[in-house]
Amino acid sequence: MNIEGLSLLGSGRASIGKRRFHAFNPETGSPLEPELAEASEQDVDRAAELATQAVGAFARSTAGRRAELLQTIAAGMESEAEAIVTRARLETALPDARLRSELGRTVAQLRMFAGVAREGSWVDARVDHADPNRQPVPKPDVRSCLQPIGPVAVFGASNFPLAFSVAGGDTASALAAGNPVIVKAHPAHPGTSEHVGMVVQRAVADVELPEGVFSLLFDRGTAVGKYLVQHPQICAVGFTGSARAGRALMDLAAWRPQPIPVFAEMGSINPVFVLPGALTRNSEALAVGLHAAAMTGVGQYCTNPGLVVVQTGKAATAFAERLADLYRTTTPAPMLTEKIHASFLKGAEHFARTEGVSVLARVDGPPDTWQAGSVLFKTSASSFLRHRHLADEVFGPATLLVECADTAEMVAVAQSLPGQLTASVHGTDAELGTEEKLLSLIQSRVGRLIANGWPTGLEVCDAMVHGGPYPATSDGRSTSVGTRAISRFGRLACYQSFPDALLPEALKEANPSRLWRTVDGKPGRH
Amino acid sequence: MNIEGLSLLGSGRASIGKRRFHAFNPETGSPLEPELAEASEQDVDRAAELATQAVGAFARSTAGRRAELLQTIAAGMESEAEAIVTRARLETALPDARLRSELGRTVAQLRMFAGVAREGSWVDARVDHADPNRQPVPKPDVRSCLQPIGPVAVFGASNFPLAFSVAGGDTASALAAGNPVIVKAHPAHPGTSEHVGMVVQRAVADVELPEGVFSLLFDRGTAVGKYLVQHPQICAVGFTGSARAGRALMDLAAWRPQPIPVFAEMGSINPVFVLPGALTRNSEALAVGLHAAAMTGVGQYCTNPGLVVVQTGKAATAFAERLADLYRTTTPAPMLTEKIHASFLKGAEHFARTEGVSVLARVDGPPDTWQAGSVLFKTSASSFLRHRHLADEVFGPATLLVECADTAEMVAVAQSLPGQLTASVHGTDAELGTEEKLLSLIQSRVGRLIANGWPTGLEVCDAMVHGGPYPATSDGRSTSVGTRAISRFGRLACYQSFPDALLPEALKEANPSRLWRTVDGKPGRH
Repeated sequence: MNIEGLSLLGSGRASIGKRRFHAFNPETGSPLEPELAEASEQDVDRAAELATQAVGAFARSTAGRRAELLQTIAAGMESEAEAIVTRARLETALPDARLRSELGRTVAQLRMFAGVAREGSWVDARVDHADPNRQPVPKPDVRSCLQPIGPVAVFGASNFPLAFSVAGGDTASALAAGNPVIVKAHPAHPGTSEHVGMVVQRAVADVELPEGVFSLLFDRGTAVGKYLVQHPQICAVGFTGSARAGRALMDLAAWRPQPIPVFAEMGSINPVFVLPGALTRNSEALAVGLHAAAMTGVGQYCTNPGLVVVQTGKAATAFAERLADLYRTTTPAPMLTEKIHASFLKGAEHFARTEGVSVLARVDGPPDTWQAGSVLFKTSASSFLRHRHLADEVFGPATLLVECADTAEMVAVAQSLPGQLTASVHGTDAELGTEEKLLSLIQSRVGRLIANGWPTGLEVCDAMVHGGPYPATSDGRSTSVGTRAISRFGRLACYQSFPDALLPEALKEANPSRLWRTVDGKPGRH
Repeated sequence: MNIEGLSLLGSGRASIGKRRFHAFNPETGSPLEPELAEASEQDVDRAAELATQAVGAFARSTAGRRAELLQTIAAGMESEAEAIVTRARLETALPDARLRSELGRTVAQLRMFAGVAREGSWVDARVDHADPNRQPVPKPDVRSCLQPIGPVAVFGASNFPLAFSVAGGDTASALAAGNPVIVKAHPAHPGTSEHVGMVVQRAVADVELPEGVFSLLFDRGTAVGKYLVQHPQICAVGFTGSARAGRALMDLAAWRPQPIPVFAEMGSINPVFVLPGALTRNSEALAVGLHAAAMTGVGQYCTNPGLVVVQTGKAATAFAERLADLYRTTTPAPMLTEKIHASFLKGAEHFARTEGVSVLARVDGPPDTWQAGSVLFKTSASSFLRHRHLADEVFGPATLLVECADTAEMVAVAQSLPGQLTASVHGTDAELGTEEKLLSLIQSRVGRLIANGWPTGLEVCDAMVHGGPYPATSDGRSTSVGTRAISRFGRLACYQSFPDALLPEALKEANPSRLWRTVDGKPGRH
């Protein structure tokens, strides 16, 4: 498979447009070949038209066919793994091991959603039988389930070139639900995107689904994404990225003549609360664990722990000193893009210049590179509460330690926080048992609450919630990771008094696929 | 219980404000006593503050307590039935039998949601156990379920003074999910709203929940509603009403610093497609059935069939004539408000003045009253497709018959339709079996598709979907009727590696409430 730098429109390619761009090697800052062509509005129209043409056939395709599509994509990624990882390393400078593990996770997600699609119960089928003798009026036969919502626009994320990009969780869940997908590739890793895109394109052809089931669009800036989200044929949006970009898409979607749902995961500072007993007992392990979590992927994780809240005292002082020692050992590494690197430096500088904030440790990357080392800040709770920007995310390897005088100040800090993807609480059993108010306050602000652990390392499973109240995501009722992600891309469809032969398979009386359904109020495989 | 005309703020009352208004008797157009006071911004702030104070205790309340609240409201409405129905008749001019049946339905809905709350499985609890020995990294224990979203604003609907108002489906489902509710009463039936509100207020006190679980606000116009939807303490909105008002609330909610979900049911024209075989075979029954459905509640149902699509021919001509005869027999009756009556006359006039539209039958209400009779229009498919406003809802007893030359024109009409709550298709078994394209096109535009039946008469059950693509509702992924309505008001909350004692009951290892859960991928009561 050769990267050509042209958008994939169904089974074909866009023609070479006027606006061109390059990917860059974050190690060197140099442009990478080949040159890429930005998609034109006509290209987006074509992708949307193909997707719309595919809607009916894809919606009527069997669960087995959808599963086969996802399995074929997964197998294709495995057989192209070397080439994909090699290109991704060039474009992201992420370590080989990390990229291989991310590829493994992406493949596992595709297979998980293949299983979800094949099993089929995610459609929440419900059957209420008729009762013609009911008084005062007969009861009709009513049946309903989730059906595909329509073409979905997916935005690739900068920080996960595989797992949250072209064939990542949004695409896998949207396809599993039976929706055509149009991906807007992230300009930081277009070659990786194109390679994976070709794998998907070939899989669509291999399983003989309509070509419009998948398209991939390139753009250096925001024009294609904006046009795509406003396109009348697009019915939902999946996005992982910054709060600013996510909110812009939410606004565009809300202003449409026909508003559509946007599932935007916009990151957070993932606060870590360390209670005094745990700090005294586990100081060393906590310092080492935090440093490792905060430095993962040069701090470029949505779940990066950017805020650590402790109570003042000897243990906190020792913890801060140990943490500073660890941060000073950080080896600088390239960030994903020049812009992300510049934002990191600007954000860190803003923190450093804030009254009441001290820099405990700081390792700078070499000048004139995109490399970042690490920075550890410290401040007091009162200062944190006074300077609201200290609760903003500094995307990268920066951590802010907040010292509270007592639990009441910890509560105040928790109360001040906007919605978060995660929070972690470290405490002894006794502490966790008694700090009910603090815990419930923290819990109310997060999607996932972790006891004595770290937020990075996202388990992909039924129960996972990678979500949280705004501004962590656009919709705290949803998750972008785990099997529940598929439900985002379904709409409710109900059939009343319908002939059995014309019902969708999930609603037929005989339940030929043996789905878990709710029949006359009772759940079961009936 | 005496109606005082003052908003209910928790267990208390608002003080008398400066802005006053009256309800009106639609039979006479005369103002009704008592005078009511519009809520002030301070009143809204107070209601929101009380709701916020109640959030924690209500969220932690047992499923049994929530069920008891809903049961107590249901019993209260039954014991106050005479007074409530009497007042509702004064304010709406709806027939006694209809109001009693609506009260019965409202009580049944409250009891249904009491059952849903008590049973508890709606929270979609999922448990994935840890595997400390998994390679390459240990698997953590991850558990998640839906939790209350926070204070919900509910807007009472003009056309269902009980079932879609103060203690209607939105309120019942929001309370069942554990959320405080602030209702903005519809100004057309404030006395009924206050009476039901007092029933709810007393129930909250009787079951010893915090007073902030329920408040009720009065306003003649839109100021209170707008302020409420933008209030930082409000986390979700339930609304039933016009497309214009619903979209305005959607926009306000989307423009907030922290956007919130709006579940707006905005009505539709509920097209009825009659295939030639059915028309020939069942002409008389279809005419009688359509007339009855379209005249129900003076045509003021969200599910009112406003558009009937047939194919030209002898049968269609005879059907139109018979229908015209029936429409001419309509006895005029008062509409709900002066404004609704004026809108109906204006909308019907707009249709009548449209090129290609003929009036087959028309019964006018007496002048200087709010009474409407009925009106039956006829046009061709080409004229319908040319004049897009003919697909707009004329709220009231108006029906538009569209004659198509053939099935292709029926397809074109279906394709032109915006999102609908319902569509009905009348056809013989053979016809339904062969018109797959038409059926799937219609189905793609609606929440509920009915075979050989009428859209009015909404069964309240597990499988019911009272929803549909925009503009029928704000979110085609949801329903405002049936047990699924409760899920609108939950957010996902996830716990990782949490001590069992601190988990919410739904996620505890022992599953003390015997909920249906998904444990390590397997559904069951475990």
